Amino acid sequence: MTNTTGKIFSITSFGSSHGKAIGAVIDGCPANLELNEKDIQKELDRRRPGTSSITSPRKEKDRVQILSGIFEGKTDGTPITGVVFNEDKRSRDYNYIKNTPRPGHGDYTWIEKYGNYDYNGGGRGSGRVTIGHVIGGAIAKKLLRQFGIKVISHVIQVGDIKAKTVNMNLIEEKANENPVHCADPNAAKEMEELILEYKNKGDSIGGIVETIAIDVPAGLGEPIFGKLDGELAKALMEIGSVKGVEIGFGFDVANSTASQINDEYYIKENNNSDNNINNVNIGTTTNTSGGILGGISNGMPIITRVAVKPTPSISMLQNTVDLKSCEETKIEIKGRHDPCICPRVTVVSESAVAIVLADQMIRSGFINPSNLSQNIDKQKK
Amino acid sequence: MTNTTGKIFSITSFGSSHGKAIGAVIDGCPANLELNEKDIQKELDRRRPGTSSITSPRKEKDRVQILSGIFEGKTDGTPITGVVFNEDKRSRDYNYIKNTPRPGHGDYTWIEKYGNYDYNGGGRGSGRVTIGHVIGGAIAKKLLRQFGIKVISHVIQVGDIKAKTVNMNLIEEKANENPVHCADPNAAKEMEELILEYKNKGDSIGGIVETIAIDVPAGLGEPIFGKLDGELAKALMEIGSVKGVEIGFGFDVANSTASQINDEYYIKENNNSDNNINNVNIGTTTNTSGGILGGISNGMPIITRVAVKPTPSISMLQNTVDLKSCEETKIEIKGRHDPCICPRVTVVSESAVAIVLADQMIRSGFINPSNLSQNIDKQKK
Amino acid sequence: MTNTTGKIFSITSFGSSHGKAIGAVIDGCPANLELNEKDIQKELDRRRPGTSSITSPRKEKDRVQILSGIFEGKTDGTPITGVVFNEDKRSRDYNYIKNTPRPGHGDYTWIEKYGNYDYNGGGRGSGRVTIGHVIGGAIAKKLLRQFGIKVISHVIQVGDIKAKTVNMNLIEEKANENPVHCADPNAAKEMEELILEYKNKGDSIGGIVETIAIDVPAGLGEPIFGKLDGELAKALMEIGSVKGVEIGFGFDVANSTASQINDEYYIKENNNSDNNINNVNIGTTTNTSGGILGGISNGMPIITRVAVKPTPSISMLQNTVDLKSCEETKIEIKGRHDPCICPRVTVVSESAVAIVLADQMIRSGFINPSNLSQNIDKQKK
Amino acid sequence: MTNTTGKIFSITSFGSSHGKAIGAVIDGCPANLELNEKDIQKELDRRRPGTSSITSPRKEKDRVQILSGIFEGKTDGTPITGVVFNEDKRSRDYNYIKNTPRPGHGDYTWIEKYGNYDYNGGGRGSGRVTIGHVIGGAIAKKLLRQFGIKVISHVIQVGDIKAKTVNMNLIEEKANENPVHCADPNAAKEMEELILEYKNKGDSIGGIVETIAIDVPAGLGEPIFGKLDGELAKALMEIGSVKGVEIGFGFDVANSTASQINDEYYIKENNNSDNNINNVNIGTTTNTSGGILGGISNGMPIITRVAVKPTPSISMLQNTVDLKSCEETKIEIKGRHDPCICPRVTVVSESAVAIVLADQMIRSGFINPSNLSQNIDKQKK
Repeated sequence: MTNTTGKIFSITSFGSSHGKAIGAVIDGCPANLELNEKDIQKELDRRRPGTSSITSPRKEKDRVQILSGIFEGKTDGTPITGVVFNEDKRSRDYNYIKNTPRPGHGDYTWIEKYGNYDYNGGGRGSGRVTIGHVIGGAIAKKLLRQFGIKVISHVIQVGDIKAKTVNMNLIEEKANENPVHCADPNAAKEMEELILEYKNKGDSIGGIVETIAIDVPAGLGEPIFGKLDGELAKALMEIGSVKGVEIGFGFDVANSTASQINDEYYIKENNNSDNNINNVNIGTTTNTSGGILGGISNGMPIITRVAVKPTPSISMLQNTVDLKSCEETKIEIKGRHDPCICPRVTVVSESAVAIVLADQMIRSGFINPSNLSQNIDKQKK
Repeated sequence: MTNTTGKIFSITSFGSSHGKAIGAVIDGCPANLELNEKDIQKELDRRRPGTSSITSPRKEKDRVQILSGIFEGKTDGTPITGVVFNEDKRSRDYNYIKNTPRPGHGDYTWIEKYGNYDYNGGGRGSGRVTIGHVIGGAIAKKLLRQFGIKVISHVIQVGDIKAKTVNMNLIEEKANENPVHCADPNAAKEMEELILEYKNKGDSIGGIVETIAIDVPAGLGEPIFGKLDGELAKALMEIGSVKGVEIGFGFDVANSTASQINDEYYIKENNNSDNNINNVNIGTTTNTSGGILGGISNGMPIITRVAVKPTPSISMLQNTVDLKSCEETKIEIKGRHDPCICPRVTVVSESAVAIVLADQMIRSGFINPSNLSQNIDKQKK
Repeated sequence: MTNTTGKIFSITSFGSSHGKAIGAVIDGCPANLELNEKDIQKELDRRRPGTSSITSPRKEKDRVQILSGIFEGKTDGTPITGVVFNEDKRSRDYNYIKNTPRPGHGDYTWIEKYGNYDYNGGGRGSGRVTIGHVIGGAIAKKLLRQFGIKVISHVIQVGDIKAKTVNMNLIEEKANENPVHCADPNAAKEMEELILEYKNKGDSIGGIVETIAIDVPAGLGEPIFGKLDGELAKALMEIGSVKGVEIGFGFDVANSTASQINDEYYIKENNNSDNNINNVNIGTTTNTSGGILGGISNGMPIITRVAVKPTPSISMLQNTVDLKSCEETKIEIKGRHDPCICPRVTVVSESAVAIVLADQMIRSGFINPSNLSQNIDKQKK
Repeated sequence: MTNTTGKIFSITSFGSSHGKAIGAVIDGCPANLELNEKDIQKELDRRRPGTSSITSPRKEKDRVQILSGIFEGKTDGTPITGVVFNEDKRSRDYNYIKNTPRPGHGDYTWIEKYGNYDYNGGGRGSGRVTIGHVIGGAIAKKLLRQFGIKVISHVIQVGDIKAKTVNMNLIEEKANENPVHCADPNAAKEMEELILEYKNKGDSIGGIVETIAIDVPAGLGEPIFGKLDGELAKALMEIGSVKGVEIGFGFDVANSTASQINDEYYIKENNNSDNNINNVNIGTTTNTSGGILGGISNGMPIITRVAVKPTPSISMLQNTVDLKSCEETKIEIKGRHDPCICPRVTVVSESAVAIVLADQMIRSGFINPSNLSQNIDKQKK
């Protein structure tokens, strides 16, 4: 059951790069959410390669089909199955990988553990598997939007180029204006140039992707083992090529004092006539906590960052071991790969965060687990 | 069930700072592991405050009692309950916290979510709750040691002082020689001075704790949602005051190229006479992956790091909101707290990592889930 | 983690018959439920032996202590730990069991699986372990009662003596009037005599216990693998000595036709002025379904029955195998045991059903998972 | 996540009667099990209607496609997705069900809970959904067979006709010789006539299905909440139309004494030269326990029985409520349905039992969770 994640709103992912299909079963989405294939397709299109000079030139259509879970245009409480058939898989020769694990890839550990490895295109270890995450994320995001919650990702660093801070409300629009998906246009240009430089060298470069969730209510997550930050860390670290996760101030807390970073409380809005705290909107003047304190959301924007390693598929000659002849050998990886995977990681990070938040919104009692109409009924009263 | 973690080897944590007791129920430990209270006590003693000038001067004996799970000196496959009674809880006055949440603490989110908050000593949000983690960790570590696996933590940064790299085999010994638990003695001295400096100011400082697991077999973890790094990230992020988690090269991958950091394979040892790969020991020349590739351990040391924020309890005056009068106010936190929590986080990090590894060793088929003797029987054959 | 049950409202059980303590950690109970040790003690007292001539004459005080989870008389959302210390355990000699498994008991399977067996009083296989169930059940029942739900058990068969049907509203009162806990006074008398007859022979007799949950709302459970009847079947079959579980008409459906047992719908109450179905109370004229259709409660009383085997501890000589000498041998079980365990199973069955319902009430959105006060707030609006 | 069952070997079921497809994702099957579509198809063919005069005459081809999880004819450790596209769904008019719930069906509870109900053919409440169970069961059974375990089901009662006991080794062959799947040929004939009688009346009749698992090793299951009988009870009760579950002697224990039904131990086979109990094969002279004691298998055949209610779809006029007009009304169910569902429940029961056993074989350490070849390697040594 390790291809399933989420306690109530859950995703079961399946499929491999060159098998028949890739997809996901999304369970626990309440009934009466309007949903169609376009809602999912538009997110898959953001993940697709071949859309600019800095992504892999592979052409993948990635057309999603919904096989179950929708009745008369709305979810009906049953599991939603989204599938992408791998129509265009070329019978390119991956035989050279079969016995010689590629450095930085999961080939070796897979063979060691399972003993039967679909090496074609990396099999289930391929980045294509994130299609399942994005299908789930598209549904989670649509669900969250009914409650005013927005999840957005952007690239904030590639190599040594760092983006300047951009107003939170402009990030989505700005990040969509360039192929790097960086909200700072000047940095985006420099990043693009740097990526092309490594592409031409047959090498690749890493970076950092930030994901922000806005208008999340206070009260998601639990204090010890179901911490909201713990679940976000797991979901984000489970994205292939991620080697680090931060919340809020992240690693900068190491060289900070409490007097610098303790977020102080203030009254944002007071609609209180009768000393009823429920009518008082409390915020923090800073947000170094990244919206999570003691494992529970505090109503401030939730801010996460992931460190993305450079794509391990590079055309340079690398040392490895031939598992058949039991001798050291060298490998040269064929094909054309993403010289920087960060732009495509944005939509996957959004998906990972959205899935966790959707699950927590239901678990924490903010969304009715069976029927969205019951939420609406309550608002009416 | 969010006070439970782990799929097979699991921990259910309970208790609060000033309640009757704190403890944990450890389930899924196979029978026939020799275990007694001393095995747990020695780890709890490493967590205890009051042991040096740089930890909180509070005196807590933290004597553990095992209430269940041991028969004739060995585990018997039933849940192991370890309890520490809060004998010495002073009736110090925490009333001033009741309606005025302390910045940087979980008070506000707790009240918001649960509406009934044991504010005495921070209740279940207190760092004392990690007693449960350490009880679980002590058992996990003893279990792992039967299979040659060792888990060690040390402080590698406090404020702007960074430790020099120390030979992996010396870390444990060296880190135990000073109260900071830093394996580089020069850095340790500087760190201690820095911590005392902040202590005297009534402020606190953050840092970084590294945890290494040695001689972990290749094959732990699964490729998509049960990734070993995902579960480690969750377990480590769920330690109070952690705001970032790294595996291997961590955030440094952002400014790295694949040609720099792809760990190349080589043959460490070849006991192979008949081209049988199972007799060939394969390693990587570098270990930027931190021992995990594609979500699965590769046999190299597993390396994690956590960013620990400065203890939020400081004696300086801070802004907050009075939840009763609905007005902004100020708070001054009483009592004496850890000016840097990193030294005490070491044993908690070890515990978190050990619990994940013990669970994965069973889930991945390396440890018999019911009876350790069956592992031994197999080795005999 | 197999000593934990429940998805949101969960119970982690620990302890053994002759170890230091027996108890349970109840997690996922929302905050602000008034709860004290008396609430639990009164249920434990119903489970206790030694209360009449037809139960085991063993004297066990079974005093519960709450170690965590209560603040100022109310749950605070943290795990509730209830413990009974095994104060009076006699050092009676159980050595004769050590290598000669008792027929009908779990001794043999335990030794086979775990290889280290606390044979004293049956260890964790003892019926005393249901103390944990009853602690959990007491809390579940108190929680359910806030929402008008009542769970009651009574003995309806012992040997060949069957109770007559009693009005549902009288069962609890009537069943409490006799030591058999049978609501039909005439049958109760006959059952008592039958039990004493077997007691005198050194033998024991089986029976059937029925548990009814009244005023459960329609909508609990899910249609495929989280079926309410599936979860009830599991919880009830997990009570030691239960060999069969029925819902509603149970095994009688085998010799029934649909025209006989299809429960037809009718309008119980119509407060409807504007054709709004939510104001119409629908019932079924019969209740052969036992309140569950398609895995989901339909608002009718939920009716379950369990078949309870005769206590396997009997004083007659029985054949067994000596696991040390590897020879066939005979065993005579010492001590005095319940000649019919049904009267004591009643409170355990209630607990099992109540725990499932409490979990489902939260999972299905009827009870706020964090804070009971939020349910009350909604009612006010 | 309630459409998922199983802890390690798990099934996520999806789809509805008249949607695009029905299927299941099977996760946690170790790599290197030979598997193809025929293995699954032959089990689906046993479930299919239209194969005799006593099943529904509907024609459903139910061709399965495997979308993922197989590489070079063997499982590769990744999730296996099996899908049946609903090619022949007729646009028959189910509008009459829309607002008038059919007695005995799940229509009413579904509408009450989810508020959006695909009433066509019963939607996800349809018996067609067991296609997912059977896909999972086919894989589980193939996996179990590698370890010598066989799971077989047969009909033992229809209405008041009960089958005579048949030698366990002949059941499968005998049950396949007639459309009722009853191993007693005389009873089978009578049952067939009885079923046709009810078919002609437009009514339906219930029955009992027995499932036996042979050569299951001692040691599956756990003693408290993960009891093997508890998990079997859940899996069997979750089959639509099941209202009762028995293990071994079942409800007959109610009128039994311990001296009658305690299964006594004896030595079946003694290969013991050195007083090593591992070389002694222990059995019980009777098997009233149905192969499970204290929640753990004891090596004897595991015997379960389910009570199956008569198919609720009957052509007779029944009382119900119109949920739109809020008035009482009558319904006459169209179409032709199974007059007795028992023959088709056999393969579903086998599947349910096999899935539980496969999961437990892995959880209990008998099957390597990742790679079947490692089991074979161990046997070689």
